[in-house]
Amino acid sequence: MAGGRIVTLTTDFGGADHFAGVMRGVILGVNPGAVVVDICNAVNSFDVLDGALTIAEAYNYFPVDTVHMVVVDPGVGSARRPLLVRTGRHFFVAPDNGVLSLVMDREERISVRHITAEHFFLQPVSGTFHGRDVFAPCAGWLSKGVEAEKFGEEIEDYVRFALPQPKSVAAGVMKGAVLKVDKFGNLITNFSMANAAALFAAGARVRITVGQATATAIRGNYSEGAAGEVFAVMNSMGLLEITCNRGAAAQAAKAGRGAEVLVEVAGA
Amino acid sequence: MAGGRIVTLTTDFGGADHFAGVMRGVILGVNPGAVVVDICNAVNSFDVLDGALTIAEAYNYFPVDTVHMVVVDPGVGSARRPLLVRTGRHFFVAPDNGVLSLVMDREERISVRHITAEHFFLQPVSGTFHGRDVFAPCAGWLSKGVEAEKFGEEIEDYVRFALPQPKSVAAGVMKGAVLKVDKFGNLITNFSMANAAALFAAGARVRITVGQATATAIRGNYSEGAAGEVFAVMNSMGLLEITCNRGAAAQAAKAGRGAEVLVEVAGA
Amino acid sequence: MAGGRIVTLTTDFGGADHFAGVMRGVILGVNPGAVVVDICNAVNSFDVLDGALTIAEAYNYFPVDTVHMVVVDPGVGSARRPLLVRTGRHFFVAPDNGVLSLVMDREERISVRHITAEHFFLQPVSGTFHGRDVFAPCAGWLSKGVEAEKFGEEIEDYVRFALPQPKSVAAGVMKGAVLKVDKFGNLITNFSMANAAALFAAGARVRITVGQATATAIRGNYSEGAAGEVFAVMNSMGLLEITCNRGAAAQAAKAGRGAEVLVEVAGA
Repeated sequence: MAGGRIVTLTTDFGGADHFAGVMRGVILGVNPGAVVVDICNAVNSFDVLDGALTIAEAYNYFPVDTVHMVVVDPGVGSARRPLLVRTGRHFFVAPDNGVLSLVMDREERISVRHITAEHFFLQPVSGTFHGRDVFAPCAGWLSKGVEAEKFGEEIEDYVRFALPQPKSVAAGVMKGAVLKVDKFGNLITNFSMANAAALFAAGARVRITVGQATATAIRGNYSEGAAGEVFAVMNSMGLLEITCNRGAAAQAAKAGRGAEVLVEVAGA
Repeated sequence: MAGGRIVTLTTDFGGADHFAGVMRGVILGVNPGAVVVDICNAVNSFDVLDGALTIAEAYNYFPVDTVHMVVVDPGVGSARRPLLVRTGRHFFVAPDNGVLSLVMDREERISVRHITAEHFFLQPVSGTFHGRDVFAPCAGWLSKGVEAEKFGEEIEDYVRFALPQPKSVAAGVMKGAVLKVDKFGNLITNFSMANAAALFAAGARVRITVGQATATAIRGNYSEGAAGEVFAVMNSMGLLEITCNRGAAAQAAKAGRGAEVLVEVAGA
Repeated sequence: MAGGRIVTLTTDFGGADHFAGVMRGVILGVNPGAVVVDICNAVNSFDVLDGALTIAEAYNYFPVDTVHMVVVDPGVGSARRPLLVRTGRHFFVAPDNGVLSLVMDREERISVRHITAEHFFLQPVSGTFHGRDVFAPCAGWLSKGVEAEKFGEEIEDYVRFALPQPKSVAAGVMKGAVLKVDKFGNLITNFSMANAAALFAAGARVRITVGQATATAIRGNYSEGAAGEVFAVMNSMGLLEITCNRGAAAQAAKAGRGAEVLVEVAGA
């Protein structure tokens, strides 16, 4: 099955250098009819989990046969393999380091190939910029309709990790973590309806502690809190988020990515 | 009248998260033929005035029937209404918080509709990300040619604010404010030819004080000042701007958004 | 020969203001069929060398007849000329300040024109934003197929500078400089195979000092260093780069753009 015209970028290359621009050029050089769309180029440097969260939140809104290029690649130039992943609706090219793990969690059927067809690469392949030399040209060729099986054989032993889950530490007490801090300073945690249903039950009395902040309410949206109050919402990713109306919860809590989140639930 | 193919984004979502990428995906998911173009995704968080300035400076350069999506939305999830605004040449979707006020100032005829046609929304609509669930799909459908009247009824009681104007505080003395600091550290004020003509008259002797800096000249361009000198220009927005040749006036003045600007004019 | 549909942006306008969005609008206003692609809008403010490096690394990956708009323009509004440059495969519009010098180094034949055809400009032309009023409309018209000779006469006396080269300061000792720091904190130097072949010879023993850091190995890729170790790679630009596996060499060295780089080579 052939790829469509849209190619998305999810990378940690930032916007301050030529990197993302070069990759856009390579894709368009291969397929001048491609439509290159940024998902996010400001994934935390080397942070495969942050990349995994970003692409998992975004990919499925794009049209069928979109080619998603995901390059958070601290192992560039080493033996880690380049992958081509096919889900029911989309294509992905990415390094074999787990950055597609959370996409895989959402898909029933996936086909994973080790990209070995070096004639699609820019030659010579550098040791430091496979975004340019490997992933961008493969994304370009996929968007032009080259079939997935032309890129290499299917494999089963690819890297895949599970999102860290909260743990029960006492009766009614769970310990989780901040997965990321967003642009507004919201603290996005790993508590969800699936792993902490009691937290979201009607009538539950909750106490959520992260860093120096404590929240005792889960509200429906950001503007339901008083200005400066730290509280929680179920966010648009389906995750518990510590927030602050028109302020930055990360500053109020003095906490960031990886910080411990303690949740106590009573009643319900 | 039907929307064109171009959809622009003006938001405070930043580039470090999945937010802008998700909205691009939603627009393209509705209309794979749309051309999504960023105006600016780095409006100051929650800063409706900054958003209003940004879209007002940019929208009119785009082709007829462009759909402008403007999401600076601290009231997301509350009762504030989603709007569809039609000017002579363009469409806008935005929350009803005044973020289109400065666009309205430039347009003779506008039609404002309260978007109530929920079948265009992504369901379920979250309480925290209407950029994704409300505004992006509506922008996508507009770009696909759905007529404005299909989205809801016209209203008259929408929120609209006036740009804060300088005030006369003594003979030949006016007090204004810094509206924004740009990437180069220039201080953009609310003085213009319309509200302070004497300031720009030939032969006028001026003294402009902001924070710790004083400028005594209005020049034609940035390179007419000595290196490090703080002076003023009439900028490309038609506003008085405090600048510093190859330096950051904001640093020299130790002043930022909202700072008081005192203008004294003699002669002319 | 006519321009193609793709127009790229390489500027120091940043992403936090309306500037880049306005230029995209102007290009699309002239040619609604243009495809506007960012190379980089975060060139260091006023830094013509940084702009020159950025466009030189990126332009050649784009398809034939791409129009590259390069606006790092501290002299905006002064007598410096706007240029239209034609290489074998691409068009460029840029101020006459040397920002295309490193593109010219890579091209055998170039034609340089002084853009004087003011009927292509937005009127009135501001003194402070020629990206909007001069370069964007000219890029738009070029992308629409207007011929280069319609924009002005060929000139020979344009500004062009040479990339600063390392110097030999003693037997086996060279002194160079950091050209830029990338998003990952890598220090990109001006040592290359062309100007320092001995450095890259098999068996060479090297000692590279920059700021407070010393590297004694040139490795094939980033992951070949121990975590936290400062070492060197030949990077994807063909330049010697001081790096740190999953860390920022710039922080480790406490050094930035313009810092001195001392290279000692023995053996080989």
